Amino acid sequence: MALEDIVRRALAREVRAVSRLISIIEDRLEGFERAYAEIYPHTGRAHIIGITGPPGSGKSTLVDKLAMEYRKRGLTVGVVAVDPTSPFSGGALLGDRLRMQRHVLDDGVFIRSMGTRGRLGGLSRATSGAVDVLDAAGYDVVLIETVGVGQSEVEIASLADTVVLIQVPGLGDDIQVIKAGIMEIGDLFVVNKKDRPGVERVMAEIRTALELSEMSCVEGSWVPPILLTMAETGEGVAEVVDACGEHLKHLGEEGLAERRLRRARAETMEIASQRIWQGLSERPGASEEAQRLAEAVAARKADPYSAAAALYRLLVQ
Amino acid sequence: MALEDIVRRALAREVRAVSRLISIIEDRLEGFERAYAEIYPHTGRAHIIGITGPPGSGKSTLVDKLAMEYRKRGLTVGVVAVDPTSPFSGGALLGDRLRMQRHVLDDGVFIRSMGTRGRLGGLSRATSGAVDVLDAAGYDVVLIETVGVGQSEVEIASLADTVVLIQVPGLGDDIQVIKAGIMEIGDLFVVNKKDRPGVERVMAEIRTALELSEMSCVEGSWVPPILLTMAETGEGVAEVVDACGEHLKHLGEEGLAERRLRRARAETMEIASQRIWQGLSERPGASEEAQRLAEAVAARKADPYSAAAALYRLLVQ
Repeated sequence: MALEDIVRRALAREVRAVSRLISIIEDRLEGFERAYAEIYPHTGRAHIIGITGPPGSGKSTLVDKLAMEYRKRGLTVGVVAVDPTSPFSGGALLGDRLRMQRHVLDDGVFIRSMGTRGRLGGLSRATSGAVDVLDAAGYDVVLIETVGVGQSEVEIASLADTVVLIQVPGLGDDIQVIKAGIMEIGDLFVVNKKDRPGVERVMAEIRTALELSEMSCVEGSWVPPILLTMAETGEGVAEVVDACGEHLKHLGEEGLAERRLRRARAETMEIASQRIWQGLSERPGASEEAQRLAEAVAARKADPYSAAAALYRLLVQ
Repeated sequence: MALEDIVRRALAREVRAVSRLISIIEDRLEGFERAYAEIYPHTGRAHIIGITGPPGSGKSTLVDKLAMEYRKRGLTVGVVAVDPTSPFSGGALLGDRLRMQRHVLDDGVFIRSMGTRGRLGGLSRATSGAVDVLDAAGYDVVLIETVGVGQSEVEIASLADTVVLIQVPGLGDDIQVIKAGIMEIGDLFVVNKKDRPGVERVMAEIRTALELSEMSCVEGSWVPPILLTMAETGEGVAEVVDACGEHLKHLGEEGLAERRLRRARAETMEIASQRIWQGLSERPGASEEAQRLAEAVAARKADPYSAAAALYRLLVQ
């Protein structure tokens, strides 16, 4: 199929074309920049929701049930799973994988898992590309599932309109400690597996952390709700969908524009950065010089800062 | 204290100067590049060990006990903790924090926790700086503790000579699924909390994943051992220290040089990349142009690739 056809069909939400286009952008195949330029004007319509939490918190099950709930409400859903332990990524038990199969029969749900290594331009670039394709294809809601520890949570916050942080009782003491930095990216808190002992303690910890964080002081600001779910049975899932909708409404046009400007800036900078390296590698003798500098650093004959300065001069002069 | 004094005293392993120098490099304070250039020739002597595993796997306790074991053997130890949930980072229960206090009385152990957000130049740059300071200061062993999911494990693999991957029985099904990509960075596997049910299953999964990975086919290549520990009681910790030593021996001069060249290359590129952005921001009108481009992308009037191309032209032409 010609690239123009793939783009046209993806924009018409033909599942195979959507899938192919994501691969083209992910793998940076011939013409991917042109394809990106063609779909990009069609983006900006989906509600992009990031869902993150520690391993074992039931993220995938919750994502599965959220997709079902959105379908019940007549909306189409794209899922991007960025989690080496996610059943979407093929890394799970057979039962989980079978559970996901039912969506195969429903073309209102599209599921894509992203490999976590070896992608050119990094994981966040590939994820962002998949989200844009799904958005342009007309999925009403795009759910991004990432395993949430540290950096990945910060990355998802830069992609999503609404960030759902999942916690779970009884995963051990050190997992329950919620740092202010991570709390601040959560627009919604979900305590999943609410039948487990310790649920009150987790809720109290989230509440305390929220009270300590600065945002709770500003009048009229969004107060992140804490919701209880049993993703396995679907209990509480409708309330999560409601709360995501309320958050989007609270953001309003201005709040949404602000979040999307932040994302646009980060993406542009990241791509420009890749282009700079590409430019460097195309200069005659540059990769040999880069190798020589790395060897000098490894041998402690140069420090990384002076080597970097030499590389920089090579590029811009 | 003047910078020269701080450097001189840090190289003599004076605890307060070491701490100060790490902050200077971490926060990129005045003169930090000069300080880096001065300490860098003294690096390359420490055995750098990365320790990573999921939240709740007992990383911090194991790191604590490893430090004690190295001290027993007459070696000095630097610890860099990069984990928002680590007790070293102040994010844990009082009991854990008190447990770490005993090292305060021993100047053969230095503990530093790295914040995980808001650092200029990113987390890995700050971590790398701290590791280099501890190495130059003459700590025999530098332990880097990171919470291990996806990207952070890849990052630690680029920093460390030896990578220890911790697993633990019974953290829930999806956490036990070990993907080949992550397996390949492990030089040692530790199954901690070995008294828990499911220990045989975790070991079998690691063994299977190791057999599936390519490295096991090459003759003479390192076969990652799987060790059982109870970090709480210290059981098995001496064996982990032994195995780390054996791995270093197996690497030999050539293997070590190869790992360190890889690290040098990655660091030099990363610093050069920062410098490029700095260079861009210093050009008259450049940050206004960058902002204008981001706004166009957010408004879907430009796509991120063409905006990045415009930014790139601004820099190199």
